[in-house]
Amino acid sequence: MAKGLKVATIGGGSSYTPELIEGFIKRYDEFPLTELWLVDIEAGKEKLEIVGNLAKRMVEKAGLPIEVHLTLDREVALKDADFVTTQFRVGLLEARAKDERIPLKYDVLGQETNGPGGLFKGLRTIPVIIDICNDMERLCPDAWLINFTNPAGMVTEAVLRYTNIEKVIGLCNVPIGIEMGIAKLLEVEHERVHIDFAGLNHMVYGLDVYLDGVSVKEKVIDMLTNPENTSFVKNVKGLGWEPEFIRGLNALTCPYHNYYYKSREMLEKTKKEAEEKGTRAEVVLQLEKELFELYKDPNLNIKPPQLEERGGAYYSDAAVRLITSIYNDKRDIQPVNTRNNGAIASLPDDSAVEVSCIITKEGPKPISIGDLPVAVRGLVQQIKSFERISAEAAVTGDYDKAVLALSINPLTPSDTIAKQIVDEMMEAHKEHLPQFHQ
Amino acid sequence: MAKGLKVATIGGGSSYTPELIEGFIKRYDEFPLTELWLVDIEAGKEKLEIVGNLAKRMVEKAGLPIEVHLTLDREVALKDADFVTTQFRVGLLEARAKDERIPLKYDVLGQETNGPGGLFKGLRTIPVIIDICNDMERLCPDAWLINFTNPAGMVTEAVLRYTNIEKVIGLCNVPIGIEMGIAKLLEVEHERVHIDFAGLNHMVYGLDVYLDGVSVKEKVIDMLTNPENTSFVKNVKGLGWEPEFIRGLNALTCPYHNYYYKSREMLEKTKKEAEEKGTRAEVVLQLEKELFELYKDPNLNIKPPQLEERGGAYYSDAAVRLITSIYNDKRDIQPVNTRNNGAIASLPDDSAVEVSCIITKEGPKPISIGDLPVAVRGLVQQIKSFERISAEAAVTGDYDKAVLALSINPLTPSDTIAKQIVDEMMEAHKEHLPQFHQ
Amino acid sequence: MAKGLKVATIGGGSSYTPELIEGFIKRYDEFPLTELWLVDIEAGKEKLEIVGNLAKRMVEKAGLPIEVHLTLDREVALKDADFVTTQFRVGLLEARAKDERIPLKYDVLGQETNGPGGLFKGLRTIPVIIDICNDMERLCPDAWLINFTNPAGMVTEAVLRYTNIEKVIGLCNVPIGIEMGIAKLLEVEHERVHIDFAGLNHMVYGLDVYLDGVSVKEKVIDMLTNPENTSFVKNVKGLGWEPEFIRGLNALTCPYHNYYYKSREMLEKTKKEAEEKGTRAEVVLQLEKELFELYKDPNLNIKPPQLEERGGAYYSDAAVRLITSIYNDKRDIQPVNTRNNGAIASLPDDSAVEVSCIITKEGPKPISIGDLPVAVRGLVQQIKSFERISAEAAVTGDYDKAVLALSINPLTPSDTIAKQIVDEMMEAHKEHLPQFHQ
Amino acid sequence: MAKGLKVATIGGGSSYTPELIEGFIKRYDEFPLTELWLVDIEAGKEKLEIVGNLAKRMVEKAGLPIEVHLTLDREVALKDADFVTTQFRVGLLEARAKDERIPLKYDVLGQETNGPGGLFKGLRTIPVIIDICNDMERLCPDAWLINFTNPAGMVTEAVLRYTNIEKVIGLCNVPIGIEMGIAKLLEVEHERVHIDFAGLNHMVYGLDVYLDGVSVKEKVIDMLTNPENTSFVKNVKGLGWEPEFIRGLNALTCPYHNYYYKSREMLEKTKKEAEEKGTRAEVVLQLEKELFELYKDPNLNIKPPQLEERGGAYYSDAAVRLITSIYNDKRDIQPVNTRNNGAIASLPDDSAVEVSCIITKEGPKPISIGDLPVAVRGLVQQIKSFERISAEAAVTGDYDKAVLALSINPLTPSDTIAKQIVDEMMEAHKEHLPQFHQ
Repeated sequence: MAKGLKVATIGGGSSYTPELIEGFIKRYDEFPLTELWLVDIEAGKEKLEIVGNLAKRMVEKAGLPIEVHLTLDREVALKDADFVTTQFRVGLLEARAKDERIPLKYDVLGQETNGPGGLFKGLRTIPVIIDICNDMERLCPDAWLINFTNPAGMVTEAVLRYTNIEKVIGLCNVPIGIEMGIAKLLEVEHERVHIDFAGLNHMVYGLDVYLDGVSVKEKVIDMLTNPENTSFVKNVKGLGWEPEFIRGLNALTCPYHNYYYKSREMLEKTKKEAEEKGTRAEVVLQLEKELFELYKDPNLNIKPPQLEERGGAYYSDAAVRLITSIYNDKRDIQPVNTRNNGAIASLPDDSAVEVSCIITKEGPKPISIGDLPVAVRGLVQQIKSFERISAEAAVTGDYDKAVLALSINPLTPSDTIAKQIVDEMMEAHKEHLPQFHQ
Repeated sequence: MAKGLKVATIGGGSSYTPELIEGFIKRYDEFPLTELWLVDIEAGKEKLEIVGNLAKRMVEKAGLPIEVHLTLDREVALKDADFVTTQFRVGLLEARAKDERIPLKYDVLGQETNGPGGLFKGLRTIPVIIDICNDMERLCPDAWLINFTNPAGMVTEAVLRYTNIEKVIGLCNVPIGIEMGIAKLLEVEHERVHIDFAGLNHMVYGLDVYLDGVSVKEKVIDMLTNPENTSFVKNVKGLGWEPEFIRGLNALTCPYHNYYYKSREMLEKTKKEAEEKGTRAEVVLQLEKELFELYKDPNLNIKPPQLEERGGAYYSDAAVRLITSIYNDKRDIQPVNTRNNGAIASLPDDSAVEVSCIITKEGPKPISIGDLPVAVRGLVQQIKSFERISAEAAVTGDYDKAVLALSINPLTPSDTIAKQIVDEMMEAHKEHLPQFHQ
Repeated sequence: MAKGLKVATIGGGSSYTPELIEGFIKRYDEFPLTELWLVDIEAGKEKLEIVGNLAKRMVEKAGLPIEVHLTLDREVALKDADFVTTQFRVGLLEARAKDERIPLKYDVLGQETNGPGGLFKGLRTIPVIIDICNDMERLCPDAWLINFTNPAGMVTEAVLRYTNIEKVIGLCNVPIGIEMGIAKLLEVEHERVHIDFAGLNHMVYGLDVYLDGVSVKEKVIDMLTNPENTSFVKNVKGLGWEPEFIRGLNALTCPYHNYYYKSREMLEKTKKEAEEKGTRAEVVLQLEKELFELYKDPNLNIKPPQLEERGGAYYSDAAVRLITSIYNDKRDIQPVNTRNNGAIASLPDDSAVEVSCIITKEGPKPISIGDLPVAVRGLVQQIKSFERISAEAAVTGDYDKAVLALSINPLTPSDTIAKQIVDEMMEAHKEHLPQFHQ
Repeated sequence: MAKGLKVATIGGGSSYTPELIEGFIKRYDEFPLTELWLVDIEAGKEKLEIVGNLAKRMVEKAGLPIEVHLTLDREVALKDADFVTTQFRVGLLEARAKDERIPLKYDVLGQETNGPGGLFKGLRTIPVIIDICNDMERLCPDAWLINFTNPAGMVTEAVLRYTNIEKVIGLCNVPIGIEMGIAKLLEVEHERVHIDFAGLNHMVYGLDVYLDGVSVKEKVIDMLTNPENTSFVKNVKGLGWEPEFIRGLNALTCPYHNYYYKSREMLEKTKKEAEEKGTRAEVVLQLEKELFELYKDPNLNIKPPQLEERGGAYYSDAAVRLITSIYNDKRDIQPVNTRNNGAIASLPDDSAVEVSCIITKEGPKPISIGDLPVAVRGLVQQIKSFERISAEAAVTGDYDKAVLALSINPLTPSDTIAKQIVDEMMEAHKEHLPQFHQ
């Protein structure tokens, strides 16, 4: 282990980096970071320099002895790291734009994590993650891999199944966002609210919700059936559940559930938005351009407030909170993506799940939830099946498995349409899918 | 137990009855039936008499000492029965026509077993089945209940969960139809083909297929990717799987899988057919009228060949084969709906599954299959979740649960549309849903 | 709920009570107890008064506004209680003496929890606990039942299976004792040591041990193979594991494992001690007499140090620590006996297990451990089988089940000897086993 | 695959061989064996020739075109075999005598399968079986391995876990012996009796027993509580269960259960017999000598009746019945040792269990039994733990694991005695345990 604490951030040129820096600054007392290595690839060099210099100014302003290194050499960055975080995007936002646009042509939602977009993001990303893991095995075998790269569930599954890295955690800001949303709904401090989370990444449910330790689920479900309260989470706006549905379900949903329990409405809304103002990737592309313009300003030495519009709020909090808890063996409870290990009964022990865990120095230990409510087991299994077949396709380059993965996805209306989408996307993303084009 | 063998058939006025009679006649040597009681309700009296008299003529022609009794008194029929078979339809085909028509208005497939139609057929049927079970507990506690009434999986689940009758078997002609279709494809005798079936009713997969005991799955999958071979099962015509999909899946599908893996095409086809020649119920209504005209002919004393167009071929074979195997402790292998008991790993032990079983005098004992292929676990769980929530709604009359059941059904595009369909169907079927209209 | 915090302690006349009082005093800031009701039965009235008056003096000395009530009326004590603790002993120490003496005649260890003694203690205790639970359902349905009464695992199993009380926790001082022993071995503060506990009451294993969050299991196992270090837990002195055995096992044992992994030596030692200085119960009887003499002293207003020789050290800490964590929703980790809920893979979900849990206001939530090491699964299952059949015998009064329970106990060398012991003990404990003597 | 049917029998010089030959002759119509290769090692050459020549005379007398080959070259024998059977004994009966004698010195039962003797038989046998499997992978990858070599459960476990051979079945005559014993008790033909078997090798229970398909368990249990009926199985004589025990258990035991549920009596009996007439191995050694004298007689051309005294009756029937069912895809039910695959709930899916299976051309498929009765789960798990740790020790040569395996065996009274026995036996069997002596 390096003297002092070393973190390597793969995809360091991301527009999210200032949030991460802010997080490290805020928690410096508990996590005295020595070296932060921001790594990126040749194509991202310019952005890396812009955001990296902002990072340096932020650290300087905070008056902290954190060295910020910018590099294109992943091996140097990984060497003896204590934590590796990943926030890269193979093919950049341009690839995401295709993930969203192409399925829409077939009247199918793109959905960048658990839909066709997620499949192709996985096919592009998983081979890279596996490379990183192989490097880590050599260069920093004791490091923790904290993965934010989407589809975070599928990626964590792939790392658990296809690499020797056991110290991997998939992280998402959705659960913390729900908790903050519920706190706002209840008009109380976030700290007073606890939720028992269980499910998969972007397919997570709140099985119970507590205020000061006492279950207030019934009350919250009641409040959620009031249409004025439902849009409590930013980013993906709730479309408003039918009161009968949410009472029958008797669990908290996450914003991504709109894709599955409101597919038709989401498809219409997404098509309309794509037409009127562009897909989400196209909107974000524009936002990012503006952000990087801001980041260039040599007088800027804090995270600019405009970043919050980018989406992904609470990431810094979630990520650095997690790292800090591991480092300090805090044994607090956080929802992360980790090996199931029996915590959720009807999912395999060796699959990745998103579940409330105790965060210890030896990693997250899931709290046993027994089984999911009957009504949600099907959808959760379906996404897990999708994740596993997708990961298998990504690793093997088996085209049949790619078609199968999309055919069994709940957003896809038939095997034929699945094949058509796969074919068009295979071509569109050709350069990032070498395993299928040999 | 009665002297001799007594069978009671609830819904005895069904157009299927001649097949059942044919089955009993064909297997009389092995199953020496003494009394067959055909029971129906007041509204079905006329059909009961027509088909019942045909049954009597068939038995007479066969020269067998089987007494055929026609009655509207269920209790008399059940008293000391050895086997009870159910083939009734609450609300008759007219109700099924609504089950199919109403969802189509919302661009949703009706699907009379695992879709919206199945939900409402379940809501109408389950309370009646529970009544029958309560009667059986009193009048023939040692009898076996052989249920053909659809949705057979949901009904079997409801009997297992909400009654004291343990001797229940759900029966379907789909697996035997697949086996016969595969035999035809391979151009061999049916007896030489064995398939390992596992899944749920109308959601069953062939995990392996054997010719003379040797696996020929690979060969069969290859043949199935030849588009000329795919429409090998009558009734629901296969629309032709993409070769990549079926190779990736590496299992045999059942005809009902078209609803889930070809939803969009099936919706278009169903809408077109409904417009051009009526829904399936409407077509069958006409067929039935013609059948009953035939049945009236006092010279008819065999099952008329036209019955095979009705659908439901092989029912007689499946049903009487099952009864005969139980009676004779044959210990042969048949796919039926029974308590899982651990045979399929990721489904609850106490849920109904459709699986290859050894048929003994003490009932079916499932063959352990380990777990379903990863790719199919999701859809199977989803239908099981749907069956369980639907059964719960049927028993409790909980309107929220009815909306929930339909919202989580894979054919339903949103909770809002689910609610709209539930509302319209609740009204349309009002007289048969007393539990929701008190 | 009562105004203020009310605790009812069944078996309040126990010699342990001063420890409990000390615990409540020590943690008053976190758990502001208002009323403590010490309940006992007529036969224990004298002891109740002696120890109850000491309790009052202790509270007075501490200057705290806690009312201490002494009563023989259980219903008054339970009414609106927030916590109910149980530390009673049906038949008193005299019964325990028989539990120990009688099996020895047959060259069988008595063992008061998981052996023949435990069976009979369970048969005497479980009907009483069920009565208490029935009272609680009526009088304080929201209260937590914290059970210290042995056999705590069997009693917790019985409450979970045969009553409507879900808010039950079985508590034992063994795990905390092991943690303190290991801390001592490592020469560090107790707070720096964490152990992952899993198993059953008095059959619990430490699956991993951490110092400041870092696993030191290997080092601890090494230290334990040094014979000088093995007697690290008081009460049941370790007899010294073979280094090969403990390295092969690769887990921490509890003191009670000596009964199973050193049966022959323990039998010889126990027989020798019984002959030379009396059985443990007989020794404790004498100790208790001396303790109660001390307690009578009107000048005594603290827990006398002699109590620690009685055994059961750390009970006060474990019990009040648990109650305080529940009350304050502390979400710290403590090993308790609770419903498994999938935490330990090969034990039933609905059985009681002893496992590290998060302690919340809504009770303990077990941390998922996956499965026990292969080598220990057998013995753990065997004790669980014994606990379940014993509990069934206790509730039903089925004599065959009592013989079966003892026959399958690992300490019993045959069904015939089991029957002989059961017969002699049934007679000896006749007055406390009404369910078997009707 | 060879032209015609080829069987290779490893340990062909065994005294059991004439039974096997008898079996092949009796079932020749169904299983037209072409070549039988009897293989043995140099040390067994003389016996191989004696018994091999008898085999040839038996075949000649039967007038069947089966070639019998005698060889010391295992590779030639295995080449293109269809079935491989194993009945060898590493170290011969002399080693078994040590397995029995040495533990007795420590007042511990030797028990050649699930006790200390079984541990050492496993340590000697498993490396040889793994060699055979490696040969099979090369020389006859499609062959079935039918293993009779004890400890058959541990050996099957080892093959499943540590080789690539999936087509392995462990076979034992205990279940068929129980069925025949029960048939005799009921005074009916064997064919009319069926038993649902579940458990492990030599630790198998009859969960239900049927006469003509109807459960007669209650009646059989009643008959078994009649002491005159209990010694219904030869070989290991039943010592007579207490009626309370067997009624409480409510399942059929196997003869080996005497070692666990009557340990003390069995120990006394075994010590007495060892003293008076020698251990079982010593008795059998004498019997074998006499048998081989008989076998030498050139006029003998049938299985001599004296072989039945040797023990192991029904082996020929069990073995050839199994092979015939596989070859003919008979789909009849037979109890064998195979991969659990979920058939027995609380045992691992990938462990070997002994359970009633459907015997198909693709091997045995276990019938799902749900879970074992609560009372027997512990002992079954304990033996499974013992088998697994023993197999691990055999494969790795890890001395700690060998001590651990014996320490957790229910027949062993302490880790210290386990170590003493292991040490003495390691020395005594030195030449056959190269993995521990390098």
